[in-house]
Amino acid sequence: MSTRRVPVIERIMGANDTQAADNRRIFDEHGVHVVNIMAAPGAGKTSLILETVRRLQGELRIGAIEGDVASTVDTDKVRAGGAPAVQINTGGGCHLDAKQVAQSLNEFPLDEVDLVFIENVGNLICPVGFALGEHTRVAISSVPEGDDKPYKYPKIYANVDALVINKIDLLPYLPFDLEAFQKLVRSLNPDIELFPVSCVTGKGMDAWTSWLQNLARAE
Amino acid sequence: MSTRRVPVIERIMGANDTQAADNRRIFDEHGVHVVNIMAAPGAGKTSLILETVRRLQGELRIGAIEGDVASTVDTDKVRAGGAPAVQINTGGGCHLDAKQVAQSLNEFPLDEVDLVFIENVGNLICPVGFALGEHTRVAISSVPEGDDKPYKYPKIYANVDALVINKIDLLPYLPFDLEAFQKLVRSLNPDIELFPVSCVTGKGMDAWTSWLQNLARAE
Repeated sequence: MSTRRVPVIERIMGANDTQAADNRRIFDEHGVHVVNIMAAPGAGKTSLILETVRRLQGELRIGAIEGDVASTVDTDKVRAGGAPAVQINTGGGCHLDAKQVAQSLNEFPLDEVDLVFIENVGNLICPVGFALGEHTRVAISSVPEGDDKPYKYPKIYANVDALVINKIDLLPYLPFDLEAFQKLVRSLNPDIELFPVSCVTGKGMDAWTSWLQNLARAE
Repeated sequence: MSTRRVPVIERIMGANDTQAADNRRIFDEHGVHVVNIMAAPGAGKTSLILETVRRLQGELRIGAIEGDVASTVDTDKVRAGGAPAVQINTGGGCHLDAKQVAQSLNEFPLDEVDLVFIENVGNLICPVGFALGEHTRVAISSVPEGDDKPYKYPKIYANVDALVINKIDLLPYLPFDLEAFQKLVRSLNPDIELFPVSCVTGKGMDAWTSWLQNLARAE
């Protein structure tokens, strides 16, 4: 099976990288900083985006490209939160690719935003293998997922610029060792930025939004 | 991209189905009932298996085939819980396939068990597309993931025999509408068995273990 699949996937990856470079050029021409957000289903990708939009209202113009296998529930939520958003439905695909993002830009008001979140399909495995043209890669872990996930899905932890550790308001109810978890993640990725946050209580959100503002200012 | 990929994937699926039928024959020859467990990372697949093993000790001989991208942490836990277990590491693959399961059987004591859990790779999208030779397919949702997941990942909810709704002990702390969630799942799959459970408090576990015992008895 692997001998049959590898050459095909390599050819796709080559085409994907070319398209990702084109996307990146378009983002740079518009002075927009783009953040690719990757996480397991239910880690809180949309909640983090919504809470970030709310906190930076009037300071940073944020938009979102929402990836999902099906439905427009996330796009509806982000629009209701006051930010421009477009939906990509993969129809069964387990990650976004650069071509899907390029197509979504036809409907996206790039001139009206400073920072764009691309919310990838909920999956800890495949999305990290496909560049979309983003400047920054962020993964989200959530406390209820358990603190052993870096052992099982090492590639995503090793290949992102930052990790948001979400739902820390649930720490009192769950056996999650925050310190050991952060140490484990740093062993895979010594330069990673770590942001323990709760979108519910707001704890840790200031550090996260300041970091984003610095990224967008550098653009 | 899709025109290039589809024929290759279809050929692989054909080979996978043939191997799955061979696996099924082997399971049947040994009178073993096999349950393919699929869920997002951190939904509680291993916890459910461990708690089921503990509760059915002396009544049902249970084993596990543990799938992960990397590590043997789950197999170590199941063995420590007193059940035979083997690990499959996909090395990057986002689902198990029938060939991997066939190879794992070389090390597995099928004559010593009545029921085998195959714990699939943590992923709500791809595993449901690959038969492994199992008799029964079970998905696990967990309360912290949120009650909107069936909109986003409809295929898995529509194609399993049962859904375990895990971590109901966290319902007081999270905005999860259990009744609406079950209604939504039934709209995708009217015949599905639903088991709201907590592996921590034990609530709902009796209904789940009784159901499994009936499945194994029918073998």
